[in-house]
Amino acid sequence: MANYALTLCFKGTAYCGWQVQNNARSVQSVVQDAVEMVFGARYGVTGCSRTDSGVHANEFVCHIKNAPAFDAEKLPLALNAHLPYDIAVKAARVVADGFHARYSAKGKEYVYLIWNSRVRNPFYIDTALQYPKRIDCEKAEALAQDFVGRHDFTSFMAANSGIEDAVREVWYFKCERDGDFVRFIVAANGFLYNMVRIMCGTVLQRLSGRIQEPISAIIEAKDRSKAGPTLPAHGLYLNKVFY
Amino acid sequence: MANYALTLCFKGTAYCGWQVQNNARSVQSVVQDAVEMVFGARYGVTGCSRTDSGVHANEFVCHIKNAPAFDAEKLPLALNAHLPYDIAVKAARVVADGFHARYSAKGKEYVYLIWNSRVRNPFYIDTALQYPKRIDCEKAEALAQDFVGRHDFTSFMAANSGIEDAVREVWYFKCERDGDFVRFIVAANGFLYNMVRIMCGTVLQRLSGRIQEPISAIIEAKDRSKAGPTLPAHGLYLNKVFY
Repeated sequence: MANYALTLCFKGTAYCGWQVQNNARSVQSVVQDAVEMVFGARYGVTGCSRTDSGVHANEFVCHIKNAPAFDAEKLPLALNAHLPYDIAVKAARVVADGFHARYSAKGKEYVYLIWNSRVRNPFYIDTALQYPKRIDCEKAEALAQDFVGRHDFTSFMAANSGIEDAVREVWYFKCERDGDFVRFIVAANGFLYNMVRIMCGTVLQRLSGRIQEPISAIIEAKDRSKAGPTLPAHGLYLNKVFY
Repeated sequence: MANYALTLCFKGTAYCGWQVQNNARSVQSVVQDAVEMVFGARYGVTGCSRTDSGVHANEFVCHIKNAPAFDAEKLPLALNAHLPYDIAVKAARVVADGFHARYSAKGKEYVYLIWNSRVRNPFYIDTALQYPKRIDCEKAEALAQDFVGRHDFTSFMAANSGIEDAVREVWYFKCERDGDFVRFIVAANGFLYNMVRIMCGTVLQRLSGRIQEPISAIIEAKDRSKAGPTLPAHGLYLNKVFY
């Protein structure tokens, strides 16, 4: 008997997100099916976070508790043989009994990927947001520094998400350009519902002039209506989990 | 009345290639439909090459002959509104009467994209070949230099393609690594049927030791059976057309 931590990569387009839901196909249920095929019985698979419908992951960690002995080196190939092409197990390792994919995580890094061109990119229809107006990355990164630090992020949380403590610590917010691709990269000790998508939507509207208030003032206001729009799910990637 | 040259980008997965075929969906027919929507009448659209089923293009050039006057700057957006998401017009310009997308081309550059990892990449299932064995790019590029120059490429042409003159001039063959992605980049004044895919398949088998003969000897033999396999279409991109 052992606990295993799996590192997954998935394209979220065809899924309702990580978490099992009635009448929808979730990444969790598909992974649990593969685990059952490999181990011969059903084991709970617990993820490091819920992810929204259509959100992707370059690195998503989940754990399987009290599963039978299995060569961890061979687990990725065994599971991949039973997973659809849009999900891949990149790595597996045996972890301590106390390890929990979600509660043991110290923080996460998300990437929001933008195809910054007037012409769409046929290869990134489901995997990057097309945004026509030229993004000034230096300016974006500079104004987003207001996010960094320990703040109450009520303004950057989906209204009615029912969370009481909206204080989170943002570690960094970077903006990188690679040709016509722009990446917003943000890490924090935790994220509220839709937080990254609202943060990125606010940065874009600050750049375009639609929002005039500095981000520090929007944080201060603790008012969702002061911030920008929630960007679509298909540009968002869970990129790293810190333990 | 004017001739227009269009630069397209397309993901070839859903198409039987460029050329119109009975009972199959081609890029050409879809572009001709969009041209008809914009110009109000049907005009022939001629491509710079046939491409195989499933092959992609970062840059594919075609021309429309004797079409009505239209602001070339606005043509991409107008056409894109009538094209499916997996095809995009990147640019349009008015060209001389004598311009022909295929016959005026001096050469082309293709890229063969490989995801060089034991674990598949969920984001590149249709757009890169997964190849598990580590590719030594320096070695690959060195041994592929035999391709460069003017040669009879009969060994690197699909058998029975019915072409009499198999002499082509290869300008360069490069191999670049970017993380777990490997790109074979090859340019020539023209390509035979399946030529790039057979060249790349031969390079991989030379690296793995399955093929022992140097590429110069395989060229010399003028015998398709001496060369390596035709790699799958989904890793191949028409990357540039030289005029």
